[in-house]
Amino acid sequence: MGGIDWDAVQRWDAQYYLHVLSSNREYEFVPIERVEGDYLEFPDGSRALDMLNQLICVPAGQCQPVIQRAIVDALERYGHVAEYYNTDYRARAAKLLVEDILGDREWPGKVRFVSTGTEAIELAFIAAKLWKNKPYVLTREFAYHGWTMGAAGATKLPGYVAQLSGTEDDHSARFVQSHPPGGFFLAPNVDCFDCSLGHTYPACKETGPELPCVRRTRRVIEGVNPQMIAAMVTEPICGSASIGPPPPEYFPQIRRLTREMDIAWVCDEVMMGFAKTGNWFCHQAWGDEVEPDILVMGKGLSNSALPAAGIIVSKEIAEFFDEQRWINVSTFGGHPVVMAAVCATLQYLIENDAPARFREKGAYFGEGLRRLEREHPTIGAVNSMGMVFTIELVKDRQTKERFVAMNRTALHAGDVAQYPTEIILQKTLERGVVITGFSPNTLRISASMNISEEDMDMALDALDYGLAELDRLAAQAEA
Amino acid sequence: MGGIDWDAVQRWDAQYYLHVLSSNREYEFVPIERVEGDYLEFPDGSRALDMLNQLICVPAGQCQPVIQRAIVDALERYGHVAEYYNTDYRARAAKLLVEDILGDREWPGKVRFVSTGTEAIELAFIAAKLWKNKPYVLTREFAYHGWTMGAAGATKLPGYVAQLSGTEDDHSARFVQSHPPGGFFLAPNVDCFDCSLGHTYPACKETGPELPCVRRTRRVIEGVNPQMIAAMVTEPICGSASIGPPPPEYFPQIRRLTREMDIAWVCDEVMMGFAKTGNWFCHQAWGDEVEPDILVMGKGLSNSALPAAGIIVSKEIAEFFDEQRWINVSTFGGHPVVMAAVCATLQYLIENDAPARFREKGAYFGEGLRRLEREHPTIGAVNSMGMVFTIELVKDRQTKERFVAMNRTALHAGDVAQYPTEIILQKTLERGVVITGFSPNTLRISASMNISEEDMDMALDALDYGLAELDRLAAQAEA
Amino acid sequence: MGGIDWDAVQRWDAQYYLHVLSSNREYEFVPIERVEGDYLEFPDGSRALDMLNQLICVPAGQCQPVIQRAIVDALERYGHVAEYYNTDYRARAAKLLVEDILGDREWPGKVRFVSTGTEAIELAFIAAKLWKNKPYVLTREFAYHGWTMGAAGATKLPGYVAQLSGTEDDHSARFVQSHPPGGFFLAPNVDCFDCSLGHTYPACKETGPELPCVRRTRRVIEGVNPQMIAAMVTEPICGSASIGPPPPEYFPQIRRLTREMDIAWVCDEVMMGFAKTGNWFCHQAWGDEVEPDILVMGKGLSNSALPAAGIIVSKEIAEFFDEQRWINVSTFGGHPVVMAAVCATLQYLIENDAPARFREKGAYFGEGLRRLEREHPTIGAVNSMGMVFTIELVKDRQTKERFVAMNRTALHAGDVAQYPTEIILQKTLERGVVITGFSPNTLRISASMNISEEDMDMALDALDYGLAELDRLAAQAEA
Amino acid sequence: MGGIDWDAVQRWDAQYYLHVLSSNREYEFVPIERVEGDYLEFPDGSRALDMLNQLICVPAGQCQPVIQRAIVDALERYGHVAEYYNTDYRARAAKLLVEDILGDREWPGKVRFVSTGTEAIELAFIAAKLWKNKPYVLTREFAYHGWTMGAAGATKLPGYVAQLSGTEDDHSARFVQSHPPGGFFLAPNVDCFDCSLGHTYPACKETGPELPCVRRTRRVIEGVNPQMIAAMVTEPICGSASIGPPPPEYFPQIRRLTREMDIAWVCDEVMMGFAKTGNWFCHQAWGDEVEPDILVMGKGLSNSALPAAGIIVSKEIAEFFDEQRWINVSTFGGHPVVMAAVCATLQYLIENDAPARFREKGAYFGEGLRRLEREHPTIGAVNSMGMVFTIELVKDRQTKERFVAMNRTALHAGDVAQYPTEIILQKTLERGVVITGFSPNTLRISASMNISEEDMDMALDALDYGLAELDRLAAQAEA
Repeated sequence: MGGIDWDAVQRWDAQYYLHVLSSNREYEFVPIERVEGDYLEFPDGSRALDMLNQLICVPAGQCQPVIQRAIVDALERYGHVAEYYNTDYRARAAKLLVEDILGDREWPGKVRFVSTGTEAIELAFIAAKLWKNKPYVLTREFAYHGWTMGAAGATKLPGYVAQLSGTEDDHSARFVQSHPPGGFFLAPNVDCFDCSLGHTYPACKETGPELPCVRRTRRVIEGVNPQMIAAMVTEPICGSASIGPPPPEYFPQIRRLTREMDIAWVCDEVMMGFAKTGNWFCHQAWGDEVEPDILVMGKGLSNSALPAAGIIVSKEIAEFFDEQRWINVSTFGGHPVVMAAVCATLQYLIENDAPARFREKGAYFGEGLRRLEREHPTIGAVNSMGMVFTIELVKDRQTKERFVAMNRTALHAGDVAQYPTEIILQKTLERGVVITGFSPNTLRISASMNISEEDMDMALDALDYGLAELDRLAAQAEA
Repeated sequence: MGGIDWDAVQRWDAQYYLHVLSSNREYEFVPIERVEGDYLEFPDGSRALDMLNQLICVPAGQCQPVIQRAIVDALERYGHVAEYYNTDYRARAAKLLVEDILGDREWPGKVRFVSTGTEAIELAFIAAKLWKNKPYVLTREFAYHGWTMGAAGATKLPGYVAQLSGTEDDHSARFVQSHPPGGFFLAPNVDCFDCSLGHTYPACKETGPELPCVRRTRRVIEGVNPQMIAAMVTEPICGSASIGPPPPEYFPQIRRLTREMDIAWVCDEVMMGFAKTGNWFCHQAWGDEVEPDILVMGKGLSNSALPAAGIIVSKEIAEFFDEQRWINVSTFGGHPVVMAAVCATLQYLIENDAPARFREKGAYFGEGLRRLEREHPTIGAVNSMGMVFTIELVKDRQTKERFVAMNRTALHAGDVAQYPTEIILQKTLERGVVITGFSPNTLRISASMNISEEDMDMALDALDYGLAELDRLAAQAEA
Repeated sequence: MGGIDWDAVQRWDAQYYLHVLSSNREYEFVPIERVEGDYLEFPDGSRALDMLNQLICVPAGQCQPVIQRAIVDALERYGHVAEYYNTDYRARAAKLLVEDILGDREWPGKVRFVSTGTEAIELAFIAAKLWKNKPYVLTREFAYHGWTMGAAGATKLPGYVAQLSGTEDDHSARFVQSHPPGGFFLAPNVDCFDCSLGHTYPACKETGPELPCVRRTRRVIEGVNPQMIAAMVTEPICGSASIGPPPPEYFPQIRRLTREMDIAWVCDEVMMGFAKTGNWFCHQAWGDEVEPDILVMGKGLSNSALPAAGIIVSKEIAEFFDEQRWINVSTFGGHPVVMAAVCATLQYLIENDAPARFREKGAYFGEGLRRLEREHPTIGAVNSMGMVFTIELVKDRQTKERFVAMNRTALHAGDVAQYPTEIILQKTLERGVVITGFSPNTLRISASMNISEEDMDMALDALDYGLAELDRLAAQAEA
Repeated sequence: MGGIDWDAVQRWDAQYYLHVLSSNREYEFVPIERVEGDYLEFPDGSRALDMLNQLICVPAGQCQPVIQRAIVDALERYGHVAEYYNTDYRARAAKLLVEDILGDREWPGKVRFVSTGTEAIELAFIAAKLWKNKPYVLTREFAYHGWTMGAAGATKLPGYVAQLSGTEDDHSARFVQSHPPGGFFLAPNVDCFDCSLGHTYPACKETGPELPCVRRTRRVIEGVNPQMIAAMVTEPICGSASIGPPPPEYFPQIRRLTREMDIAWVCDEVMMGFAKTGNWFCHQAWGDEVEPDILVMGKGLSNSALPAAGIIVSKEIAEFFDEQRWINVSTFGGHPVVMAAVCATLQYLIENDAPARFREKGAYFGEGLRRLEREHPTIGAVNSMGMVFTIELVKDRQTKERFVAMNRTALHAGDVAQYPTEIILQKTLERGVVITGFSPNTLRISASMNISEEDMDMALDALDYGLAELDRLAAQAEA
């Protein structure tokens, strides 16, 4: 579409669009003319390899032809049909999830679709509260579950709560009043690189029958009152907080704890679901015992080709809801054209054994990262599962001193150009690669299941180049 | 698409999909194979004229070719691009709104897109709270603004708050605990058919300089504390509550009041926006003084072809946000393929002068309804603006006695088959027309801008037939 | 006690005590050396007749000898005994209330004592929520029910919510964040002098079977959701808001409404209880049908001789609580020495037929006020019940224009010396009488049951003198 | 007072008083006819030595003559005087606190009095929120700060939150809905006998510069958002939770943390204040650095002779409040007769060097407890500071296995007669001594500053006797 007048676009965008993440003074126009596979293409024809996979949300690669085609087909028959009518696409999407993807599991009951991850989290909380008839939700520090009010209640990354953050010398922020609401309580997260309970894994296992972080969670539940907690929500691997995978004992113990306390376990697979960690859903890494009451899906569900999200509830919950009328309609829930994208995505992922593919790509890329780890002292740790990576950046590997003091609790105020993730981004962009992260000192890397070894090598080279700069800055600081 | 195995679809749907509005026992499979214009087509080839316009959300008619084609085009170039990148579609969509549709107005500043109406309401509240730096929101009785927690706080239709309602003899409901949250306060609505303040319009104008419902709103604000109210949210015409248009004095006075009290006025045009009331936005009916601080859009924005919603903030707010970094990302906000649907919808509506078209269709259909009103004693009132109609159903026009005692506050529990709206639906369906409503005694009718006079006549005939049944029941009850 | 070094007292008070209602700059030292009957005595021996009865809280007059003596007696036997032990005083106090004062009523079940009115309101809400197992409380505009967080939730006088109000030119206020909490909703008050619904009594009775203010309350309940409202709390006559008595239809209708909606009616008699309105409890004025589920007491309960308050719950509630363990202890609840003061107060009031005495005094004083009303155009209305009076001050009796625009919603910020209530206070003090009010334009007057006709005449003279000044200011303003 | 008809008292009490802690079926009448020193006297003339000091609230002993006499004196001059007048007693009480008791400290600014501890906590939160202009409060697991809604928000003992607990076989509880409100977050407590973080003191000091429990608190603050937390509230030693004193590093680190995070530190000395821990205020044990922004007082402040409580705010806060009008009145705040009791109590404590006296008594009693610890295997630990003791009861000292699984989180539902604290109570009562606790497995012991060595010996003997029974039960269970 050579006909695009990008100057006009830039003018309109600057004048009429409310931008996020940067003030107007700072705002940079980054036009994307097309996307394909793992690449972004700019109007001048140049391209960038997207190693953030947008927001870890395009598992089948951009513009995957079979998905695009399926949408085109659906457009022949469907405009919009509201949630109280039935379409073949919606029924098939539910069937693909419960029967084809999770068919070897006992727990899954029924599916309901909405449009976005934050909506799906809201829906999960509503379902859990109705089921348990209890009022509160337990979440964890550093959790990100969305931005609408209920999801925001469960979000505990103070730097990602819809605030206005200051620019330049202004390190303050204006937070949204009465948002989040009450009724959300905070358990510790599990971050073995920087344990907030002062333990070291695996030595911490000697302290008792439960990991200290699980025991602490138990105590928070007891302190808040288990009879008032409807649900505990967790990301299987923290997405926006970019924390490495928890130790293998964590989720089995959390799951036992929630069962014991009669608390619904809501597993937020919005970012980690759909194969990229090497299992269909990330929580499956921890065995059969670790099965959610409510699984929350988004992003990868439709390959982000169109806005789709949803929940899968357990058989027990499904039977409970079947008894009554649930008076809750979402205009775009189960939109037939969107459902066509979901069906095509799921079929593509199934037919191409996406979990195996992501395990294989992840193994290759992980090896490269391990090599960089040996070479760059500013790598504090490389964590991974499947094709999802985090790299902890440190000034000093021994002391684990950070470049920027606040990491996951940074407010993104003041001069963010000095964030290591920003420095790496600038450097990797010089080599045509997007590598960055959501916290100042932690890189978050992923890609589609189809990324080539050549592209991974290119990404590793670019990262090597960026880390060299960081090593230089660290050495300079020390001198 | 004869190839669809509808038996399998029905099986999957029953087994794997979590249905709303009816219990499993009550659930009926209503498959829609395709849609076009104002018609739903069933697998057996039969069709129904949809006089609810799905949820009053398909202004350009289903499967409008230019819109479908625009989506197909976009799929060539775009999968997903996150909100911090820029695309031509998003910029153009913003430009179409601010420049082409609202270009004759001074107030509009900038646009931001999300995926659904409930998200757009949440976004509007966040924006208003940040702007005013105050914590509370004022809403109105019978308001419907969405179902996610923040939007649910503003929703005051007790029968549409995501509850589980009983079936058969069970008239109870289980409500969602701690949902809505605090911080939302309740002003009266304006319903001149059934004034909750005990007044009659226009006599009520004699009571003072403000309408009693506005004066009462003033007092609620004073009682709650104007210095803690960030926003007042209103639908210009109540959508789900299906209330007729307010008298002409109402919104000018409300707007003056909110300005005087330093409260942001959030105008929720999700259902009423995009021409169907005869103006681009419904609030424009009440003159230049009635301009929102934040306008909320959804449904019609994309002709519901894909999930799209958004807000337009005033110039003053836009300038305020431009100064800081707004740390708030929605994965699917401004999705390029969705934006293509928005651009095509807006262009289609503009090119075909949708407001004029809706005024014209509404005039024709309204005439027919007025005729039915004369013939059917169970019509208590016909209210309309453009092509948006409500019909109040009564047992007796003089006493205004209802068939079902609770109307807008009904919980949809127990035996709903006796709701007049259900009775009308069953009867009109016999004639191939969908006419019903969201409250037991109030019909809600609309259609696309392209509906033919023949189809409107058919709808009127079907309604005539349904009302005859209702007249019969009313006469029987009296006897 | 001539030995008091009042200079030292003033120094200590200025240096070490955190004063309310005035900034340090404005603060005036008003030492009271002793009190007796209706009089305050200053260190210089001068006296003032207290026509505010402190806070309408000393029905038997200050230092009533039989009460003081009873306390002295109790001090012989009791220091402190916690709530899970039993003392004769506490049992007798409960018996005096239920058997001797309310013995002709069916409803009263059991009593529980705490120390202050705000605590008693909190206790009533806890009891109502446990009983109904519902989460919300309905309150009314202009309500004052206390200042602790739960009571503050029910308080809707924006100028009495623990805020910091500006001085001099600063008309702003800093409100307490997250205080009040959510879960409190707002019904209209009933103020026939300034109806917030735009009606005039008794014409408003023609609008339907319920008064418009009751009908509006019904609609608020329906809009909020009756199944989530545990209690409606009302003052029988608004105390701090100083509104005149409601019309006779109001409370019978409210009571029927709360019963119909399964909502506990909490009647806050903290200020109006204990005879001063001419009945033992104010709500008794409206007939047998108007009986609370929970009656809240304070102030007059102990003649304010010591801090005492409590609740009386209905037989039905008492039986409900009897079935379980209520795990809720107040250290000073039922304090034996305080209970001695309560017993003596109640016995004194009973033996001297306090209701009759207050009716008699009120008749005399009311006659005088009616006389002043005829003479002073700035009296807009005189409202009374028993010995409780409010006088509405206006610039103009016809237009009801106020001296200060905001009345009950005034924030007490800026230059309050121009409040008519302040002007009257300064003038009446010149004549040795304290007459003032809690809102800028409304006087609140009361006295003990023992006030003499001479003292009432003196108060009337002083008020006459003050009103003359106000008349002058009103005339001046007009000129 | 032989004239008391205790049969009538029992009848009235049973019929008219709403009892706490036991259902009507379980309720036992325990009449106290008089109290003196550390003794309770029953109507039959028998006595019991009260080693719970009521609720740790009578430091000078019951019916201390100088205090009772001071109250009698005050009754000559004062009935009630509201908070906006000034009396000598109130000024002197403030002066005694700031000048005479805390005169060697820099921090104390001004005092404000209310009637109860729960009110004082509410006042402290209001003051802290106004000062910091932030909305949230951080509290700790197992905290008890009162029962009114704001104080209840900070209370995190699920078994003491005003719930209705089941009896006999019913282990459930009905909690108060929407109570507590939102806006309260939970930090860990510090309990080295049963560390909820899985550490052992002092080894835990090796994990980093801060104790793990402080580090975890830091992380909770960061996770919640320091810019929204107005105050952190702590008991210096947990009162109702009956936890032993924290290690010496804890409070200095907490204080540094709150300063660094710009969070007001509210120190709740309601139970621990006024010398019984061996310092005037308990927090003084941890050095000069540990000084509160707001100190909360109750119980001991007036020797519980009358209901008194209050706050002392720092100079900085006092100066802040001095600039504005604080519109917040408590009817009984600074009640002159109550203030007389406070003055007399403080003077008595000062003149008799209460801190030294408590240290001395505590040393003697502690020695006796240490002896019992050696003899009774069911003593898991004896913790103390001054004359405040907790004894952890265990089935087995090595494994620390409890008799009742839930300890501080027990709901007091079901058959509580098997709680070790109940068993000890029954046994010690046989010997004329009250020894028990607030949690199933933890004894809480204290006494007045005047307790004799003979009485302490008697208490130790009774406890010895009770523990023997417990030892027997533990041995039996094991066999």
